[in-house]
Amino acid sequence: MPDGTTPLLLRQDSAAGATRLTLNRPDSRNALSFAMLGALLHALEEIAQDDAVRVVVLAAGGPVFCAGHDLREITAHRNDEDAGRGFYTAAMQRCAAVMQTIVALPQPVIAEVQGIATAAGCQLVASCDLAVASEAAKFCTPGVDIGLFCSTPAVALSRAVPAKPALEMLLTGQMVPAAEAQRIGLVNRVVPAAQLTEATTALAEQIAARSAHTVRLGKAAFHRQRNLPLDQAYAHCAAVMTDNLLAADAEEGIGAFLAKRSPVWQDR
Amino acid sequence: MPDGTTPLLLRQDSAAGATRLTLNRPDSRNALSFAMLGALLHALEEIAQDDAVRVVVLAAGGPVFCAGHDLREITAHRNDEDAGRGFYTAAMQRCAAVMQTIVALPQPVIAEVQGIATAAGCQLVASCDLAVASEAAKFCTPGVDIGLFCSTPAVALSRAVPAKPALEMLLTGQMVPAAEAQRIGLVNRVVPAAQLTEATTALAEQIAARSAHTVRLGKAAFHRQRNLPLDQAYAHCAAVMTDNLLAADAEEGIGAFLAKRSPVWQDR
Amino acid sequence: MPDGTTPLLLRQDSAAGATRLTLNRPDSRNALSFAMLGALLHALEEIAQDDAVRVVVLAAGGPVFCAGHDLREITAHRNDEDAGRGFYTAAMQRCAAVMQTIVALPQPVIAEVQGIATAAGCQLVASCDLAVASEAAKFCTPGVDIGLFCSTPAVALSRAVPAKPALEMLLTGQMVPAAEAQRIGLVNRVVPAAQLTEATTALAEQIAARSAHTVRLGKAAFHRQRNLPLDQAYAHCAAVMTDNLLAADAEEGIGAFLAKRSPVWQDR
Repeated sequence: MPDGTTPLLLRQDSAAGATRLTLNRPDSRNALSFAMLGALLHALEEIAQDDAVRVVVLAAGGPVFCAGHDLREITAHRNDEDAGRGFYTAAMQRCAAVMQTIVALPQPVIAEVQGIATAAGCQLVASCDLAVASEAAKFCTPGVDIGLFCSTPAVALSRAVPAKPALEMLLTGQMVPAAEAQRIGLVNRVVPAAQLTEATTALAEQIAARSAHTVRLGKAAFHRQRNLPLDQAYAHCAAVMTDNLLAADAEEGIGAFLAKRSPVWQDR
Repeated sequence: MPDGTTPLLLRQDSAAGATRLTLNRPDSRNALSFAMLGALLHALEEIAQDDAVRVVVLAAGGPVFCAGHDLREITAHRNDEDAGRGFYTAAMQRCAAVMQTIVALPQPVIAEVQGIATAAGCQLVASCDLAVASEAAKFCTPGVDIGLFCSTPAVALSRAVPAKPALEMLLTGQMVPAAEAQRIGLVNRVVPAAQLTEATTALAEQIAARSAHTVRLGKAAFHRQRNLPLDQAYAHCAAVMTDNLLAADAEEGIGAFLAKRSPVWQDR
Repeated sequence: MPDGTTPLLLRQDSAAGATRLTLNRPDSRNALSFAMLGALLHALEEIAQDDAVRVVVLAAGGPVFCAGHDLREITAHRNDEDAGRGFYTAAMQRCAAVMQTIVALPQPVIAEVQGIATAAGCQLVASCDLAVASEAAKFCTPGVDIGLFCSTPAVALSRAVPAKPALEMLLTGQMVPAAEAQRIGLVNRVVPAAQLTEATTALAEQIAARSAHTVRLGKAAFHRQRNLPLDQAYAHCAAVMTDNLLAADAEEGIGAFLAKRSPVWQDR
């Protein structure tokens, strides 16, 4: 069990600009307690301001990726004067803030899923830009089993996965193996367990080696245009791309490509 | 041919709360005549008010699941004073009402597809929350073959299936085998013909065994959030989940989970 | 190298009503220069007015389908007085106009992809209604490699392909083989290279053999309803379908079907 001195979340920065955040409550199956959600939110807000971070890997310690909300903590708050309403409201809002902060983060976020990702843990994976899973990873949204439908996980899940597979996960709570998760769009790649960190790190460093300016404007444009009508999406992205063409890194990148040399990014 | 005493639609309620609706015009390939659409709408409206129904299976008698609109009926109305406009308007509106009533129904609806599902029959499958298909099932939207594009089926199809496979079905009318229908997201599971009813019933009873309160709020939240912008989707679902946490079945379900016992639902 | 007399784009009309547009700058990998985009826009605008055209195939000469924007031209405009802003704005707007004109074209457009489709070339494929690819075809959005994120290609890509595979293409620039492109929804069919033109032509002629009136109203309804809320989508398509039922070709098509004879279209 973590004591007051064990950090809930580990942050490890690499020279390449790939920052690794590791959920560090393995004895509690990395449950998203109110404090863990706070630690995630705080870390993401710091990273958003940190130009040295070019890409984020979200990983987890122990055999479980993340078991979702902390049911013991939830149950304890039934004894509050308001029967828990205040706490539940705050916890759901904080959870939704974490997920939206991942989407809004300037840097891409890659989930590295080594084990089971459950409920809000599955939502974390769905919310990341990319996900690499171990062959041992599994995914489920089993709230229906405990009378608590995975309604907020459905928001992220239904934006990654087609409607019928998403509803099947939500209505049955069934465990989805990694290969099936890839088939339906929940993860990008599945690799043997022993190669998971290596594969995710390689993907992260591939992205970190690109112009950070370009990657950031691209991630933002992708999410911004996604829900716009076609004409507005094009108007937005055509403007983004015009600015991009005038930026130093596009001039360098295109010049290097035409000269068949490697580009040197200035990240602007 | 059905006479006036043969019901167009059979309803069979199970003790588990899984209600089976069976299209019962096998000699007309279960075509969606105006009366059949009315029978479906009526049955769904009754079920929406019926707390004993926890899940619905939509099945069909005979070798064909559903051949879509009743072309003989459509042709007969060309002799109307208005050349059919009034009838066609009413039929299309009723058909759209049936499909939207399935989506809006409090209870999940599972299509059990034993044979060919054509045009508005394919739309029925696409409109259901889940679908289980026999290996013998096939799917198509062949309106282009008869000068009547499957425009309303496209509404449901394009919300279940990615754009290019949906357009291929609509523009070519080609028959899609069950395995391919699963690959593109139109059905969840494909099973041997002899196991279809057993497999669908098992899935239905798995859902019926959960808290009906939880399943209902979850289905409604899923469809409500689906087309909202991300921030509004999270605001809605976080509020739904807070209320859910305060409901009796979540307290029971979470308590039972922590105590490693089976929950006893009160459906509230 | 094309001189002033080599057309950038070849147009070949067939007796069946299947018009073939071929990108004809193979020595420049069919790059989308400002002039090429203009030629495409002009050809599409002509086709939109041409009732003899029932379906369009967009193909390319040489080993590459399309390499995206013309980077030499882009680089040359850095010497403009405004450092290129005016040209880049015009080029991005023209490119977005081409893509939206494909979607808005009355006739279906089928991409015939014989080789690599890169960046805006990949966007062309994603923008078409249907796509047939050679086994030798590959797809990528490698703007990140040159400091120029594929932001406008992301508009079309994210409307054809689920979010995580789309982001993987955009953030890594990786080459996607034809079979994987089919798996994620970017192309409909993959055939051996030697059969590509035959397969695409057969698909085009299958569509051309249908009532052009029906195909046109159906394509328009599909794209119109796609981003509407469910109730508005149904209201629109139910009205479209009522009008369709009253059109001559639906009367002929339904009548022919019931009489088990072949329909004779009047295209109205």
